[in-house]
Amino acid sequence: MSSNIASADGRLGILLPGLGAVATTLIAGVHAVNKGISKPIGSTSQMGTIRIGKRTENKTPLIKDFIPLADISKIAFGGWDIFEDNVYQSAVHAGVLDRYLLEQLKPELEAIKPMKAVFDKKYVTKLEGTYYKTGATKMDLADQLREDIRNFKTENNCDRLAMVWCGSTEIYIEESAVHQTIESLEEGLRNNDENIPSSMIYAYAAIMEGVPYANGAPNLSADIPALIALAKRNGVPICGKDFKTGQTLMKTILAPGLKTRSLGIAGWFSTNILGNRDGEVLDDPASFKTKEMSKLSVLDSILEPEKNPDLYKDLYHKVRINYYPPHGDNKEGWDNLDIFGWLGYKMQIKVDFLCRDSILAAPLVLDLAIFLDLASRANMSGIQEWLSFFFKAPQTPTKNMQPLHDIFKQEMKLKNTLRHLQGEDLITHLGLDYEEEATQNA
Amino acid sequence: MSSNIASADGRLGILLPGLGAVATTLIAGVHAVNKGISKPIGSTSQMGTIRIGKRTENKTPLIKDFIPLADISKIAFGGWDIFEDNVYQSAVHAGVLDRYLLEQLKPELEAIKPMKAVFDKKYVTKLEGTYYKTGATKMDLADQLREDIRNFKTENNCDRLAMVWCGSTEIYIEESAVHQTIESLEEGLRNNDENIPSSMIYAYAAIMEGVPYANGAPNLSADIPALIALAKRNGVPICGKDFKTGQTLMKTILAPGLKTRSLGIAGWFSTNILGNRDGEVLDDPASFKTKEMSKLSVLDSILEPEKNPDLYKDLYHKVRINYYPPHGDNKEGWDNLDIFGWLGYKMQIKVDFLCRDSILAAPLVLDLAIFLDLASRANMSGIQEWLSFFFKAPQTPTKNMQPLHDIFKQEMKLKNTLRHLQGEDLITHLGLDYEEEATQNA
Amino acid sequence: MSSNIASADGRLGILLPGLGAVATTLIAGVHAVNKGISKPIGSTSQMGTIRIGKRTENKTPLIKDFIPLADISKIAFGGWDIFEDNVYQSAVHAGVLDRYLLEQLKPELEAIKPMKAVFDKKYVTKLEGTYYKTGATKMDLADQLREDIRNFKTENNCDRLAMVWCGSTEIYIEESAVHQTIESLEEGLRNNDENIPSSMIYAYAAIMEGVPYANGAPNLSADIPALIALAKRNGVPICGKDFKTGQTLMKTILAPGLKTRSLGIAGWFSTNILGNRDGEVLDDPASFKTKEMSKLSVLDSILEPEKNPDLYKDLYHKVRINYYPPHGDNKEGWDNLDIFGWLGYKMQIKVDFLCRDSILAAPLVLDLAIFLDLASRANMSGIQEWLSFFFKAPQTPTKNMQPLHDIFKQEMKLKNTLRHLQGEDLITHLGLDYEEEATQNA
Amino acid sequence: MSSNIASADGRLGILLPGLGAVATTLIAGVHAVNKGISKPIGSTSQMGTIRIGKRTENKTPLIKDFIPLADISKIAFGGWDIFEDNVYQSAVHAGVLDRYLLEQLKPELEAIKPMKAVFDKKYVTKLEGTYYKTGATKMDLADQLREDIRNFKTENNCDRLAMVWCGSTEIYIEESAVHQTIESLEEGLRNNDENIPSSMIYAYAAIMEGVPYANGAPNLSADIPALIALAKRNGVPICGKDFKTGQTLMKTILAPGLKTRSLGIAGWFSTNILGNRDGEVLDDPASFKTKEMSKLSVLDSILEPEKNPDLYKDLYHKVRINYYPPHGDNKEGWDNLDIFGWLGYKMQIKVDFLCRDSILAAPLVLDLAIFLDLASRANMSGIQEWLSFFFKAPQTPTKNMQPLHDIFKQEMKLKNTLRHLQGEDLITHLGLDYEEEATQNA
Repeated sequence: MSSNIASADGRLGILLPGLGAVATTLIAGVHAVNKGISKPIGSTSQMGTIRIGKRTENKTPLIKDFIPLADISKIAFGGWDIFEDNVYQSAVHAGVLDRYLLEQLKPELEAIKPMKAVFDKKYVTKLEGTYYKTGATKMDLADQLREDIRNFKTENNCDRLAMVWCGSTEIYIEESAVHQTIESLEEGLRNNDENIPSSMIYAYAAIMEGVPYANGAPNLSADIPALIALAKRNGVPICGKDFKTGQTLMKTILAPGLKTRSLGIAGWFSTNILGNRDGEVLDDPASFKTKEMSKLSVLDSILEPEKNPDLYKDLYHKVRINYYPPHGDNKEGWDNLDIFGWLGYKMQIKVDFLCRDSILAAPLVLDLAIFLDLASRANMSGIQEWLSFFFKAPQTPTKNMQPLHDIFKQEMKLKNTLRHLQGEDLITHLGLDYEEEATQNA
Repeated sequence: MSSNIASADGRLGILLPGLGAVATTLIAGVHAVNKGISKPIGSTSQMGTIRIGKRTENKTPLIKDFIPLADISKIAFGGWDIFEDNVYQSAVHAGVLDRYLLEQLKPELEAIKPMKAVFDKKYVTKLEGTYYKTGATKMDLADQLREDIRNFKTENNCDRLAMVWCGSTEIYIEESAVHQTIESLEEGLRNNDENIPSSMIYAYAAIMEGVPYANGAPNLSADIPALIALAKRNGVPICGKDFKTGQTLMKTILAPGLKTRSLGIAGWFSTNILGNRDGEVLDDPASFKTKEMSKLSVLDSILEPEKNPDLYKDLYHKVRINYYPPHGDNKEGWDNLDIFGWLGYKMQIKVDFLCRDSILAAPLVLDLAIFLDLASRANMSGIQEWLSFFFKAPQTPTKNMQPLHDIFKQEMKLKNTLRHLQGEDLITHLGLDYEEEATQNA
Repeated sequence: MSSNIASADGRLGILLPGLGAVATTLIAGVHAVNKGISKPIGSTSQMGTIRIGKRTENKTPLIKDFIPLADISKIAFGGWDIFEDNVYQSAVHAGVLDRYLLEQLKPELEAIKPMKAVFDKKYVTKLEGTYYKTGATKMDLADQLREDIRNFKTENNCDRLAMVWCGSTEIYIEESAVHQTIESLEEGLRNNDENIPSSMIYAYAAIMEGVPYANGAPNLSADIPALIALAKRNGVPICGKDFKTGQTLMKTILAPGLKTRSLGIAGWFSTNILGNRDGEVLDDPASFKTKEMSKLSVLDSILEPEKNPDLYKDLYHKVRINYYPPHGDNKEGWDNLDIFGWLGYKMQIKVDFLCRDSILAAPLVLDLAIFLDLASRANMSGIQEWLSFFFKAPQTPTKNMQPLHDIFKQEMKLKNTLRHLQGEDLITHLGLDYEEEATQNA
Repeated sequence: MSSNIASADGRLGILLPGLGAVATTLIAGVHAVNKGISKPIGSTSQMGTIRIGKRTENKTPLIKDFIPLADISKIAFGGWDIFEDNVYQSAVHAGVLDRYLLEQLKPELEAIKPMKAVFDKKYVTKLEGTYYKTGATKMDLADQLREDIRNFKTENNCDRLAMVWCGSTEIYIEESAVHQTIESLEEGLRNNDENIPSSMIYAYAAIMEGVPYANGAPNLSADIPALIALAKRNGVPICGKDFKTGQTLMKTILAPGLKTRSLGIAGWFSTNILGNRDGEVLDDPASFKTKEMSKLSVLDSILEPEKNPDLYKDLYHKVRINYYPPHGDNKEGWDNLDIFGWLGYKMQIKVDFLCRDSILAAPLVLDLAIFLDLASRANMSGIQEWLSFFFKAPQTPTKNMQPLHDIFKQEMKLKNTLRHLQGEDLITHLGLDYEEEATQNA
């Protein structure tokens, strides 16, 4: 084991702003796994393997056997919500997991009650919260969150913490002056600046408490110069934005495949139908815009139309999300691709992904908490680009750098980082400096 | 330019056993490209790019500008067929390219007349040929082919040649004694051994004439110890088998994507409907078996169920091909994937690929001829595993080695080979010895 | 109420050869409905409405309020199977209904135990029965079934009975000499004629006992001159064959729709994937042939290519069934239609029906039992063509008559028969004689 | 032949406001048919058959052989457009028909030049016209149209005329005071009332000139009390609105099919992607609203949720249209249906209709012109409900009457009307008075 990484022993607390469908599916699932009822399918940290050495050596351990990770049998869960329901009640309401399973976990889930949320309807207009904190300033609210964090750690005997945003998509906000420096942000918190939405207050509180922070929504949240600087100053690893599940996951699998064969793409139409709270929130155009920006960005960095103009420069890309209650949490993503091959002849690909939103997202929350905890123990701070693998809109170390969207390059980057941490030979050259693009040689 | 590679100047002759839909689409297409009417979309050698050096250097030339390849404006085409139609007539009959385009190329296409094929209905029971050679022994037929090859080269002023099998799928034949050594094979040719189908006679003739040979069908053809040994002895590069287009192309894109996220797969049902001659041939169970073996093999080497038993050990994989005349050459591949995620919850993916068989295959023929010619000029002989990228059932350097099916690893292997040939830094470590698995570190 | 129809009071016994997925889904469902847990969705007799009089009168009662039908709260269920499992066990094994529902009905379902089946592996090669009758001749077996029927009626205090075949598809058997007359059939039963499969023995036993008989599989069963004559002689109503669910249901909805707009159809490709026992049985080519004949027949009588040659004479129709265990009872039917419109321009329709085999079939069993009981009480005997609505391959009154497949004409025929029975004005003219085509004016 | 119907001899002029994709596809098609190049597939008047008498009589003539219709070899086409392109140029621009076909018809198509349109960008905000009339008042514009009509008739030696609106969808306008009486409308025309869009001016002009008028868009146009009254006063038959093609056509085929089996529907999500001018116009929310109202209305009248509340009262119906240039005129309609069966168990149906907008619409224009001409010759005036068959939002004789959307009932109504006109027995009772719902007994 690498001497540079602090021990993974002890208890990890996972703090979740937003105890809705995703968070409760995660919490119930970890309990089910620990009881031996189910397997943590879809979790890279629990099920993923990593090849070590030459292919002929046939050494492919589980990642969790290769590098010391927090033990999921020793996790404590906590969180905030705008409804007072405990995790059992919220999970039943979400309707993701079947009732028979939930009944078997009832005592454990009932024991987890939300803390009062920081919430302002202005940023999520479709939600009507009933259970949230009050305070004269946003800094007051941040202070209350920090106190919650400290209390949770003590009460749950946690050795370390990690926070993953599982709340709603907020309205579209562009980066502005208040977001530029630690000082301007703190001034804004004290002045109730309207460009500081709730998710940013959580991020600030976490980083101030030294708690690693990941952002599962497309909200700005920690993706501003002020919080990136704060994360570095405080030695806290952070990452984001927007869990890569469903349709965008498929897109970042298919697009590299078509490109590798020099097949052209004239159009890509993506529509989603979903009926959970997330779908309801995204029915608001302002929240949708935030999501749309996140979803539209992925193709350009994969296809590089400027380098392949005959193939991709006229690509028409359209993304739609439709709130459709009959589907509940069973999100369906339907894609039509208009592609062209030899001599420009047209072909089409249709992909219908009958997925489950929270089933795909829950293991990502677990992985992010566990890998951020690893990063923290390895003294890595600031943006963790090697966790791009989990995001629709990965944060990059520097502003002018294109995010990496190709899921196969993201995977290589993640695994080489793990190999590097453990002193194993890399499969590809790894940038020595995380400020550089680590996949420069990928 | 690398000093180890002989010049690409001069005229390359491409010889095609089987002047049907694929071959005529290729030939017409190259003429159209040379006349500036169309672009060679889908061709890696003509449209593909390759990153050189660090990502930040932003150096991504076209492959053909990076390494010396035969110039497609100087290609001569020839071939054999069991029908006497010239290439124009055959292309009109195939119905792949629109008539308006074909009329513009009529003189050039009419000028290409087939040579008499080597054909035996026993190996392709659904076809009824009318234009083929006779001979007392299979060796006699091979000799006639060799004479065709020499004549073609002279008559067309070619400096170099390459042959790509574009004929039909033959009935399923297992490797047997006659295939083991050069001697046993030549003995078999003289004795009309029934385990030597037509495609093997072409391969033998090509290799004897020093002509690189690629096999676009799943037939054994050159994939036997005797011909591999002969290729090495004669310094001839060879590769195969079975062009990776349509459904299998999609499969080797999707499967790595699901695996990277540790998503389980319970079932994968693939059905094809197509109405061209290929579809008719595959309606024969014996020919279908050859194809089925080729199509079924891809998932295991990608998913490695033995290393990921919770995810893939129970995968039920079924492939169907249906002859369906209304579709003509517009092959449609419909896939249903039953996948499972967190706690084993089930999801489904449907992919409907409305493709065009010959449009996808034609550029592969061009690429294989051009890359085999490169290999020949670089003194590479025997199986070219770096061309696995183009095949459903790639030949491997040694028998007990698993073929590489993951298209992203195949691409890496191909491009690193090119970088290596030109003395550029590799993106991944490359095996120095082609006997070894070159992607051992991929 | 019509004076010609005997009272529906009292208890109806429904006898089911084959207590597998369909039958147990029916039985559990009727119990669930009677307990107020669920609704009998999909049942025409329970949920269907019928318009009476002019549209402006706005009189649209439920069918069951319009004409006296057996009350589903007074039904007794019985059946035969080749496995000894009781209905609860069989339902759990079938995996159609969720466990939570089944637990609520456990006592009622456990109480229903199968009688020993009449079974011969020769006719269903994929099944391995363990619980069946023995007898020297097929007539002995028929006698045992007749005794079962009489005992069931007494023990369950039934006033009337109806039998619906819910067993497997048998191998393809053509009508032959033994099937022609009552005498030849009875002779064959005594001589163990190999052209008398098990389902025919059940049909004979039912009709001999005066029990109406419906056939949910494509087996010949009661569709032979001998049994049709017997049914008339004994005053017993019969009908068949092969429940119209899933893909064929969709086909008989879509085809009339395209025809009404004079849209041409060049090809119709239908594939099914299913993983239940039915799928396993149909994996046998001999059983599949029986099913294929049933499935292929529907288009011709709807499209009438002889009257519309420009539109339908070249239609290429192909049907495939694939056994695919990952889907279980969740049958999926995927259809591709190649259609053409104005000037012959081509268009395509894809239909993916993610259905549930037994959920679609169960209410048909109920409806058939209930409507056959009505027919019996109304003194209707022989083939009941007005029940074509429920079948893929409806029996017709005379051999040379085309069966009616258009579901909208079938519906009209069914409802006009009900109106006629109750003395209401018909919506269309009804043939007075059931020997005639009743929809002659439809 | 019926003595009540005036002769169909002579020349019919078809006047088309809007010479875009639909109109040019119609015009080119009729020329191609008359030259024997193609068949008028999809046209009920040209290809449709009608059963006469009892089914056993086997009398099923073509409709056009049964009742005297205008001969399509004697049709003259004219129209108005906001671009000056002749029909050949417009057809090339539309890209619906292949160039090879258009070249064969070039002289005939070039000869048809548009008349200057009546156009006001206010009602179709996405269009930028360059070729339109000017006038001080809308009545002036109407007068110019009337003069165009008279001139066209004379110059083309027409015996009779019919007009079919093939222009764009206008913004949503509700019926208001100005639309109530002939007087108020004429007053509004003189005062430039803003509630009188261009399509209403065309309808007014046609009816004033005694020319039958059909409306292929969802615009109000002739569907106002004033113009209905005018049509009756002037003895002019009219009908509308909105050609039933693509997705809505499928919907009115599928919905009756599900209903007949008492299958419940929880949700119906419909999305369209199309890239022609129609798609561009509908990208404007005000035009889309007009279309959406038309598309959403069809399910209620078919499913009658008030009579089948357990099955349809909670149906969530959503329709989306997306402008997507890569598809051009090849409109694709994708539908997801969430249905439920026995005990409420859920199933899904996906329909992907890869259609061609103008190919489906063109024969409807022809049929409407020809059937309106028949109506005119049979002295039928006002709303022709028997032509509901062709429309998404059929006009009904009286306001409070539900339109008939079930395509099978629409077909029966159309054909019985034809039988009635020719004195044949009806297949169903026909309302004697067209003010009544003729399908009251359907």
